[in-house]
Amino acid sequence: MRTVRCVLIGVGNLGRRFCEILVIKRERLLERYGLDLRLVGAADSRGAAYRQEGLNLQELIRLKQAGRTVGDYPEWGRLGWRAIDLVRTVSADLVLDASPVNLGQGGEPGLSCIRSALERGMHVVTPNKGPIVLAWRELQDLANEQGVALRYDGTVAGGLPVLNIGQRDLRGALVSQIEAVPNLVTGYVMDMLAEGMPWEKALALAREEGVLEADAAWDLEGWDAAAKLVILANAILDLEKPAQLKDVSRAGIVGLEPDALQAALTRGERYRLLARATLLVDGGYALSVAPVSLSQDHPLGQLGRKQMGVVFSTDIYGVISAVIDEPNPIPSAATMLRDLLDIYV
Amino acid sequence: MRTVRCVLIGVGNLGRRFCEILVIKRERLLERYGLDLRLVGAADSRGAAYRQEGLNLQELIRLKQAGRTVGDYPEWGRLGWRAIDLVRTVSADLVLDASPVNLGQGGEPGLSCIRSALERGMHVVTPNKGPIVLAWRELQDLANEQGVALRYDGTVAGGLPVLNIGQRDLRGALVSQIEAVPNLVTGYVMDMLAEGMPWEKALALAREEGVLEADAAWDLEGWDAAAKLVILANAILDLEKPAQLKDVSRAGIVGLEPDALQAALTRGERYRLLARATLLVDGGYALSVAPVSLSQDHPLGQLGRKQMGVVFSTDIYGVISAVIDEPNPIPSAATMLRDLLDIYV
Repeated sequence: MRTVRCVLIGVGNLGRRFCEILVIKRERLLERYGLDLRLVGAADSRGAAYRQEGLNLQELIRLKQAGRTVGDYPEWGRLGWRAIDLVRTVSADLVLDASPVNLGQGGEPGLSCIRSALERGMHVVTPNKGPIVLAWRELQDLANEQGVALRYDGTVAGGLPVLNIGQRDLRGALVSQIEAVPNLVTGYVMDMLAEGMPWEKALALAREEGVLEADAAWDLEGWDAAAKLVILANAILDLEKPAQLKDVSRAGIVGLEPDALQAALTRGERYRLLARATLLVDGGYALSVAPVSLSQDHPLGQLGRKQMGVVFSTDIYGVISAVIDEPNPIPSAATMLRDLLDIYV
Repeated sequence: MRTVRCVLIGVGNLGRRFCEILVIKRERLLERYGLDLRLVGAADSRGAAYRQEGLNLQELIRLKQAGRTVGDYPEWGRLGWRAIDLVRTVSADLVLDASPVNLGQGGEPGLSCIRSALERGMHVVTPNKGPIVLAWRELQDLANEQGVALRYDGTVAGGLPVLNIGQRDLRGALVSQIEAVPNLVTGYVMDMLAEGMPWEKALALAREEGVLEADAAWDLEGWDAAAKLVILANAILDLEKPAQLKDVSRAGIVGLEPDALQAALTRGERYRLLARATLLVDGGYALSVAPVSLSQDHPLGQLGRKQMGVVFSTDIYGVISAVIDEPNPIPSAATMLRDLLDIYV
């Protein structure tokens, strides 16, 4: 049996659900993999808690459900203690960063926490796009130097193992194109518009369904898809230098005419905000995000409102597509377990 | 740089294409992965060749294209030398078994070659279903004891990484159902019948297209799908004891009424020979192979004639489906490269 001491940064939508998954899976992980996962530390924006013998997950979940902070954790919580303070001082094996994306704030607090964790020789698992978009090369090099793992399968297309398939199952191939519908919200909104719903109502519904993030522009202007495309490209393609957000030719869905969406629906087609990396004659890749009307024959042309997908066109592995049906954020949270098990099993 | 000395058993449809892929990818493998892959030995049913410095792949391809045997390889070939003789005597790192399935002959010559290779401490990569269906537990235990890898990603659904996704990306999940269309031929034939083509002509066309194996009954009676389902179940599911062919409730496509197929097409549905593992209340799985009419909403209901696919229904990773477009056998042959790189990279 092996004990893995984890620290969780961010106990919101994904972080709290990850705790719930750990509760449910505890026995199975012990039996099947001989892994005793202990959450020794946790931090949110208002406080942190640390206990070397492990925090009680149920207690943590209760606190967050009651709208309180990890800092309120009985006996071991400290109000005002920051995530970075925790990462810099704990003795742990692995840091899970489930903090908010915050690209506008330089990917903080996630980026500093990840950097510090890697420097201190801890593995890092994160579904947080921010640090991976902004500093992938630096962080990956740091992880390699330190001989630890940096895993971020949850950054793209929720629970769909897009990065795993691309990095591991396409080894040796030349990838001529990646096409991805890497988030739910834009497809959801466009489907509503196509059915005649006004913009305001479509957005309200998307928010209600929990698929629209707090910062709507991030999704609707295509930034989220562009960020995911940058992560995909860097992780999977042979690029001369790392891709950045500014390399993506980006068009969002803001201002799309409902008429065009309705006409597509009449033709049996469906609009999706498609993120694409296309091989150029010079060996580089063109990166773009744009709304595209997809026919039913396209591998992503049948995506439902709670589905995301990817298509890899390759020289030796044919055309491989993968789709996930993700009715709730559990699969996205579970990617942290997938990454963690991939490191230890 | 690392030299990997390989031995190839079977230089037919898949084996020869694998050699062609190695020729094309040689430089990339050196540059990207620092791997110098050398084919030091090869065997077909009539002879073998062995050269410690490596055989010339182009020469080998030429011999086979001319209908000759590896035993005719200039200077280093030996007529009548058997695959097993080669495996028992060579000094190599990895054995690739691309010999014919031969379930009727106890999975030979593949099974003995794989067993011997593992006993001698060599990794094994094989797209050959026979040995994996018949002796998976024994071979996997042997590989574990010897500390070497046994990889067989190419045994199911051609170049689609079904086993990789199931074994690695679903870790920690409870899989409530696997549905797979793991071969091309049955779907191909049923599509032809649905369009009004008579049985004889549909079979002739499938043979011409290279999707129908020499032993037609193997495919049409559902044995091929059942064998693949057994491999999938053992590799991915938590079973009390290994699944065997006799555990699969099997119905093939022989005797299917073209009328039923045509009626389905009229409804916008499509018949596919579906291999299914379904979780039972007692924790076991029901294994079945049967022709099923799939609606367009089913993740496999849009499969074209050169497409295969799989759907995993899970508790924490949602429903994940994957499809491959495989217009020729290159992806199936390339699985050997995928498995090999997964061992060494």
